Amino acid sequence: MTGLGPERLSLNTATVRAQWTLAQCVDGCARHAIAGIAPWRDKLHEMGVTVAARAIRDAGLQVSGLCRGGWFTQSGRLDQTVIDDNRRAVDEAAELGAACLVMVVGGLADASRDLPGARALVEDGLAATLDYARTQGVRVAIEPLHPMYAADRACVNTMRHALDLCDRLGDGIGCAVDVYHVWWDPELEAQILRAGAARLMAFHICDWLVPTRDLLVDRGMMGDGIIDIARLRGLVEAQGFTGLNEVEIFSEANWWKADPDEVLKTMIRRAAAC
Amino acid sequence: MTGLGPERLSLNTATVRAQWTLAQCVDGCARHAIAGIAPWRDKLHEMGVTVAARAIRDAGLQVSGLCRGGWFTQSGRLDQTVIDDNRRAVDEAAELGAACLVMVVGGLADASRDLPGARALVEDGLAATLDYARTQGVRVAIEPLHPMYAADRACVNTMRHALDLCDRLGDGIGCAVDVYHVWWDPELEAQILRAGAARLMAFHICDWLVPTRDLLVDRGMMGDGIIDIARLRGLVEAQGFTGLNEVEIFSEANWWKADPDEVLKTMIRRAAAC
Repeated sequence: MTGLGPERLSLNTATVRAQWTLAQCVDGCARHAIAGIAPWRDKLHEMGVTVAARAIRDAGLQVSGLCRGGWFTQSGRLDQTVIDDNRRAVDEAAELGAACLVMVVGGLADASRDLPGARALVEDGLAATLDYARTQGVRVAIEPLHPMYAADRACVNTMRHALDLCDRLGDGIGCAVDVYHVWWDPELEAQILRAGAARLMAFHICDWLVPTRDLLVDRGMMGDGIIDIARLRGLVEAQGFTGLNEVEIFSEANWWKADPDEVLKTMIRRAAAC
Repeated sequence: MTGLGPERLSLNTATVRAQWTLAQCVDGCARHAIAGIAPWRDKLHEMGVTVAARAIRDAGLQVSGLCRGGWFTQSGRLDQTVIDDNRRAVDEAAELGAACLVMVVGGLADASRDLPGARALVEDGLAATLDYARTQGVRVAIEPLHPMYAADRACVNTMRHALDLCDRLGDGIGCAVDVYHVWWDPELEAQILRAGAARLMAFHICDWLVPTRDLLVDRGMMGDGIIDIARLRGLVEAQGFTGLNEVEIFSEANWWKADPDEVLKTMIRRAAAC
């Protein structure tokens, strides 16, 4: 296994979300020879889906994923508005030619303590979205989020749980493996093996800082923390994952304040070392 | 299942660590008819072990656990000083008649990314401590900590992992189940069932706040967050756990600033509702 060159990287727009529009991200990737991009939907909608899809195509970029569908649980039942929004997300992923639609499934409903109930709702929401996604040729990737987000962002928090859902839901659904969320899991190696190439739909990299000062917006640049990224990358590649390595860093105190061209240079340099 | 009265509660001294010495905690428990106490070792050493043991006995309090042994990993090898300190912790637990010695096992060594290595070290350290603890009649309780502490506090983060260790290590070792650390785990019910009464050595309660503003010192009072404590208590009691419900709340912004008698009154009132 060799270090990652920019031809193996994708820029998740969250990494420079404070500084750049999607159009600027596309230009930035082209300028730094980064192979792919993963837009968040807010930036996609600002630019317009069709305009963005053309710009991304014209720049020769792959789309390693669209962030994000999901968020099924907030009202405590499966609202039609949520289903509809997920269908729109599928349509957008199709128009972009995204490798997958990344699902952040949602946490507990407001004022609820019913975790099993939230998880059942998530399964229903995923099933509904998957039914439609199959008709559009879009792959759905469940992103297990770190357990510290179980209450307010995603109640699927391990690869095992995500793959149990995949087993029940069938083809066309898999996992987005983000090292930030799963690095701690003693079952990670076994579950990546279980997933295999068909279920490994995305691989996100960044780092876990010690100490971590904020639950949401204190992620680190690769190399600044304690995740053995090379080892985890080796595990997914050993299963046949050939997608891009998507860099997604939420960093209010640091990278969101930096010059965005420097952020891209840094991520390229650091990725080369892992 | 009925609500918890103070005769089923224990005060972990961390809950009022900013306000009270151990002697004051003992008096406070007696004053509020709380059945038990769980000292941290820093407060225990301040008071003196023998003096504290006598005061606790004279107050008629049970000791639901001693916090804490462990911390095996910091130097990247199993230092004799760490082994010795864990033997002292065993001796102290014996002198206090503690229901268990709670183990916070340690995270990654300084500047290390070797999580499998840290976990191997933990197993060796637990084995060494357990050998001695058996000779002193002290039960060793691994506390799986929330995965957000995997890097810097404890690299055992799930009940499954803790019970796998217990299976390999044999009798006299089990788990301390703290709802704060394990509430999110989709395998929790199955693993509590697997543990059974012999491995369930402590049950700690507090709550998970939404949002959580600090990884370490923003725990909530029961009822202020989203953990279904009654359900989790039901799971351990269904396995035959009859120990006290130990209240352990790290709360810099709130409960550590409050009048400690009010903290105890509040925890009694809130426990009655779960």
